[in-house]
Amino acid sequence: MQKKFLLLCLLGLLFFEVHAQKVNEQDSITIRNIYDMALLNGKSYEWLDHLSNEIGGRLSGSLEAEKAVQYTKEEMEKLGLDKVWLQPVMVPKWTRGFPEHAFIETAPGLTKQVNICALGGSVATSPLGLKAEVIEVQGIEDLKNYGKERIEGKIVFYNRPMQANLIHTFEAYGGCVDQRYAGAMEAAKYGAVGVVVRSMNLRQDDLPHTGSMSYGDTPENKRIPACAISTNDADYLSRALSLKSDLQFYFKQNCKVYPDVLSYNVIGEITGSVYPDKYMIVGGHLDSWDLGDGSHDDGAGCVQSMEVLRLFKKINYKPRHSIRVVLFMNEENGLRGGRKYAEEAKLKQEEHLFALESDAGGFTPRGFSFDTDEANFAQVKSWEPLFKPYLIHYFELGGSGADIGPLKDDKIVLSGLRPDSQRYFDHHHAANDTFDAVNRRELELGGATMASLVYLFDKYGTKSSMQSVKN
Amino acid sequence: MQKKFLLLCLLGLLFFEVHAQKVNEQDSITIRNIYDMALLNGKSYEWLDHLSNEIGGRLSGSLEAEKAVQYTKEEMEKLGLDKVWLQPVMVPKWTRGFPEHAFIETAPGLTKQVNICALGGSVATSPLGLKAEVIEVQGIEDLKNYGKERIEGKIVFYNRPMQANLIHTFEAYGGCVDQRYAGAMEAAKYGAVGVVVRSMNLRQDDLPHTGSMSYGDTPENKRIPACAISTNDADYLSRALSLKSDLQFYFKQNCKVYPDVLSYNVIGEITGSVYPDKYMIVGGHLDSWDLGDGSHDDGAGCVQSMEVLRLFKKINYKPRHSIRVVLFMNEENGLRGGRKYAEEAKLKQEEHLFALESDAGGFTPRGFSFDTDEANFAQVKSWEPLFKPYLIHYFELGGSGADIGPLKDDKIVLSGLRPDSQRYFDHHHAANDTFDAVNRRELELGGATMASLVYLFDKYGTKSSMQSVKN
Repeated sequence: MQKKFLLLCLLGLLFFEVHAQKVNEQDSITIRNIYDMALLNGKSYEWLDHLSNEIGGRLSGSLEAEKAVQYTKEEMEKLGLDKVWLQPVMVPKWTRGFPEHAFIETAPGLTKQVNICALGGSVATSPLGLKAEVIEVQGIEDLKNYGKERIEGKIVFYNRPMQANLIHTFEAYGGCVDQRYAGAMEAAKYGAVGVVVRSMNLRQDDLPHTGSMSYGDTPENKRIPACAISTNDADYLSRALSLKSDLQFYFKQNCKVYPDVLSYNVIGEITGSVYPDKYMIVGGHLDSWDLGDGSHDDGAGCVQSMEVLRLFKKINYKPRHSIRVVLFMNEENGLRGGRKYAEEAKLKQEEHLFALESDAGGFTPRGFSFDTDEANFAQVKSWEPLFKPYLIHYFELGGSGADIGPLKDDKIVLSGLRPDSQRYFDHHHAANDTFDAVNRRELELGGATMASLVYLFDKYGTKSSMQSVKN
Repeated sequence: MQKKFLLLCLLGLLFFEVHAQKVNEQDSITIRNIYDMALLNGKSYEWLDHLSNEIGGRLSGSLEAEKAVQYTKEEMEKLGLDKVWLQPVMVPKWTRGFPEHAFIETAPGLTKQVNICALGGSVATSPLGLKAEVIEVQGIEDLKNYGKERIEGKIVFYNRPMQANLIHTFEAYGGCVDQRYAGAMEAAKYGAVGVVVRSMNLRQDDLPHTGSMSYGDTPENKRIPACAISTNDADYLSRALSLKSDLQFYFKQNCKVYPDVLSYNVIGEITGSVYPDKYMIVGGHLDSWDLGDGSHDDGAGCVQSMEVLRLFKKINYKPRHSIRVVLFMNEENGLRGGRKYAEEAKLKQEEHLFALESDAGGFTPRGFSFDTDEANFAQVKSWEPLFKPYLIHYFELGGSGADIGPLKDDKIVLSGLRPDSQRYFDHHHAANDTFDAVNRRELELGGATMASLVYLFDKYGTKSSMQSVKN
């Protein structure tokens, strides 16, 4: 039996391969040209060098974010696109207010300094800081086990680590990040006075990792300050608590929220030669956290997206649909840019067929995930052989990206680039998300892989668009 | 037509998948256990930390190489293997003899220092160094175009770069490394007095990359010194030559060859429960170059190989065949360890069915290449679905590894782990091949992937072994 099935399978594969090769010879050549151009004459690394080293971390509402808007607009204008413009969007402005610091006090005067950072959106402590006893929990669901009597007046220490045996590190992140996002809001309900969250980091090191949090509908006077602690110091704190459960934890942070300020999405377009009023977009987010320079998150995605349009110009490919690069503002702490883009697209009745986002780091690309229907996904799967020479093998249904999410309707194909994820959370939202952590080739392969997918969607359309043409 | 073929293919795949899932449920569980153990309770990173940071670069014949022999033997003894022993092997001893240095002189007193390192096996310059004019060539084949009259008395500068648009960086290496290996031997025939080779590095930086070279049968008094120059300085030298073709290049190096010294392969074994006299081996090389600490090349391969046997013990898997870990001595500049192991295996008539080598860096594993026949390769391909959850997708016919090469006969299946290769040549044979360049998860995933393949070969045997059992 085994042999018969195997034979059937091999025959099927053989015919399919022969057929695939026949129809796709031109595609193979174009994709080879795209990769050659990206690897031999790429521009994305140079752009990222500027964004990271000349501008730096680009928190929404900061001077750096505005510099990045100007810089990327100017660079797009040099590419000879058909249109480049700024799309105004109001964004929140939260500032960290250095310095921030913390220590563990096991006896009066006996302290150990630990590495913390305020979570994005947290309130400040009092100017003198906050000192209280600590209760360690493994997650939000633990709070009700301890109850108000054991939590009230204390700092809640969320210490559930990322699960190291998950191969997809984003799954491990997804399994922990509720502690960071909702930990303060939930702990406040039990009378906690502050929150310390173990950094979302798979590595043992001394760097705290920030990230967004929400107070939900907690009244302003009930909001408690929240910080992240490095993985090494989280382990230290946990061990110290096991020896002395009534130790004191002190932290001080000076965060401040300002009124919303005007910022921009940066958009460039090559207008389609056949369907100028049908749009395909590729993008990343231009804002970043403030601790590092945002090279992986998401400078990489921005320069790769710009590179897609530059590669099309360089290999002289004239797309049939209008292809836009969109650099979204404020993904990290508001998603205002993504929402604004979708809102305006709807207002102007712009038909969007395909959107691709790169927001998982500038690491070696492995493939894409898709949020689409079976017909569109089957078409994507038929392109797999074209990507094999470039070691791109991952094509799965699943999520796409935060910024393109608001475009979702029953027609658009949404997709996210999926780079190798093993190192991503070593850098994510921390001071070491810096340019030196990006490898030029890995970054360039990502841009070329994105350009190849956009090329195929542009050439063959989506299944939804073909139906609408037929109708 | 397209639909029909597609249907046939999909049907074949479907049946195959269902079938594959059925037969391999136990295998799925075992492989999941292997990965869980490696990622949650791995030992390879700790071993590598010691090899890299406590011992350091392990050039054959050095004190560090001997320390590494002792350390890995002791660590293997702690694992509860059935046997651990040292296999004596005589190895060459070449020393670099710091300091080495070089400069470009465009006019008397007008010099620019450049970064070089002696190639492994090179002779020294005179104690005062060597200064001569330079002739830049794009490869060995260029020598005959220039001829003796233009080369004699000069330093030949081999400047053909690695080809950046090749996706497999080892191919790019293969296309250049003849300049390093045979450049001096060939240039000497035209009367050159020295050789400078562009570092085998895909990145622009300041680090020279060493590596083995050979003088072939060049008489001792005709051997000319050879060094590698960093990619940045190679470009600088090339530009300087285009402005001033008669500039002088100076370099000084103090290399020395000593008589061969005694060293060892380190071997550990779990004796097979069913076929104690049939062997499967997994290994890497314990020696390294001297500039860095040899973390990727090939500390990683050594600790991953040791980890395979440790994982089997930890998950309580008792192999049917005898499984050996072999840490080969002297891969870099002699391959004496690999040859010695094969020679003794032949002398003792030990039947070796399968050999797996890890010598391509401790990066995220992508799969394996195989040197075997179609029947064995078909068996490997049938295991692909088992590896898919771990994003292991690359199973191709091709080379295996240098150290296991001497075992090749018409029965043995040879295989090489194939990690992501994009960053490998940033570090290869240079001062930045250091522990900090290794990511713990990537290293551990490699060990688990190797263990999974060894497990499958142990459980199902090779096609050659099954034939011999049937016969």
